[in-house]
Amino acid sequence: MMTLHGYWRSSSSYRVRIALELKGLEYTYRAVNLKSGEHREPEYLAQNPQALVPMLELEDGSRLTQSLAIMDYLDQVFPKRPLLPSDPIERAHVIAAANLVACETAPIQNLRVLKFVRGEYDQDDAGVKQWAQHWIADGLSKIEDMLGTREWSFINAHRPGLFECCLIPQIYNAERWGVDMDAFPRASLIHARCTDMIEFDRARPENQPDAF
Amino acid sequence: MMTLHGYWRSSSSYRVRIALELKGLEYTYRAVNLKSGEHREPEYLAQNPQALVPMLELEDGSRLTQSLAIMDYLDQVFPKRPLLPSDPIERAHVIAAANLVACETAPIQNLRVLKFVRGEYDQDDAGVKQWAQHWIADGLSKIEDMLGTREWSFINAHRPGLFECCLIPQIYNAERWGVDMDAFPRASLIHARCTDMIEFDRARPENQPDAF
Repeated sequence: MMTLHGYWRSSSSYRVRIALELKGLEYTYRAVNLKSGEHREPEYLAQNPQALVPMLELEDGSRLTQSLAIMDYLDQVFPKRPLLPSDPIERAHVIAAANLVACETAPIQNLRVLKFVRGEYDQDDAGVKQWAQHWIADGLSKIEDMLGTREWSFINAHRPGLFECCLIPQIYNAERWGVDMDAFPRASLIHARCTDMIEFDRARPENQPDAF
Repeated sequence: MMTLHGYWRSSSSYRVRIALELKGLEYTYRAVNLKSGEHREPEYLAQNPQALVPMLELEDGSRLTQSLAIMDYLDQVFPKRPLLPSDPIERAHVIAAANLVACETAPIQNLRVLKFVRGEYDQDDAGVKQWAQHWIADGLSKIEDMLGTREWSFINAHRPGLFECCLIPQIYNAERWGVDMDAFPRASLIHARCTDMIEFDRARPENQPDAF
């Protein structure tokens, strides 16, 4: 069985959990405690020198990193219940939407960036919150604009896929940081539809064994 | 013919130019002057409400955004000279390496982030440079670690592909910001091999019509 090394609140771990659930794939979950620094301990570093989660360990011992690469692998090897449309143009639109989260939003409000802002520019909790809110709202407004350019119920042919795997964890973060989601009605609608689904519920941070 | 809307110094435009050259695809180049704010003018916004470059306009009028989505499209539709290996595990490793640039490094030293740091935290040129250098070096060190985990000449079966499309523009940025590349010998070796190739030379910022 595949083993997912992740952390309950890591949004890129959350993305991969949703993808595994949407595809109906069984896996073992191995928690890596980012809060206590377990990802920087020799045991984890020997497996993943980049010290990042998620990491998907395959049955043959191969270790895959980076959530988008892991989700691409899952879609290649388990083509049933695809995360992407088969038409290349539709496919490119869904990947672009996913990348608005994964490249334009999430990295800038990553924990290590927030720590740097706090330390380097002497920011208190309110200052760090302002940074996180600013960049999450900036990214969500781009997503909202993109969602406005076409009629989508779910973005991927009426079934959630790669974009929703990225969007739902980003909105989870937005809510944690107190971003006003009323400003993003299209993204909120997709969020409401997804979180009604059992697959998304199972992948939720609070439903992981390492949640506290 | 396809039209690439881009800016000479935008690293994500640079990625797509390399991909088009590696695949030997002809295209028209349409410069969007980010410095004068052309991407925020009504004409460009009507085509791309996210106000980002690159954008690839297809012959049927479809407009694709986000460099990784555009490169995925090119690989789907023009499978000759692939940017990714066919083996799913190798493929996932190359995508992960590309994402270490596109998700873990480039977004944090993006122009709009640098502008925010300058304005919000009252940073002068030296302060902005420190931010850029810190995050570029942080990302390149993760890439260097990853490159150390296996024997690669080029990362993708002895031919440059998706990873190099991302890495070379990132190193171009590193050099602009004065990052000491001696700390990253594996990435530097790949850089030297790539920049010797005519495809990479053609895609270089300084060889674009809008370079100044």
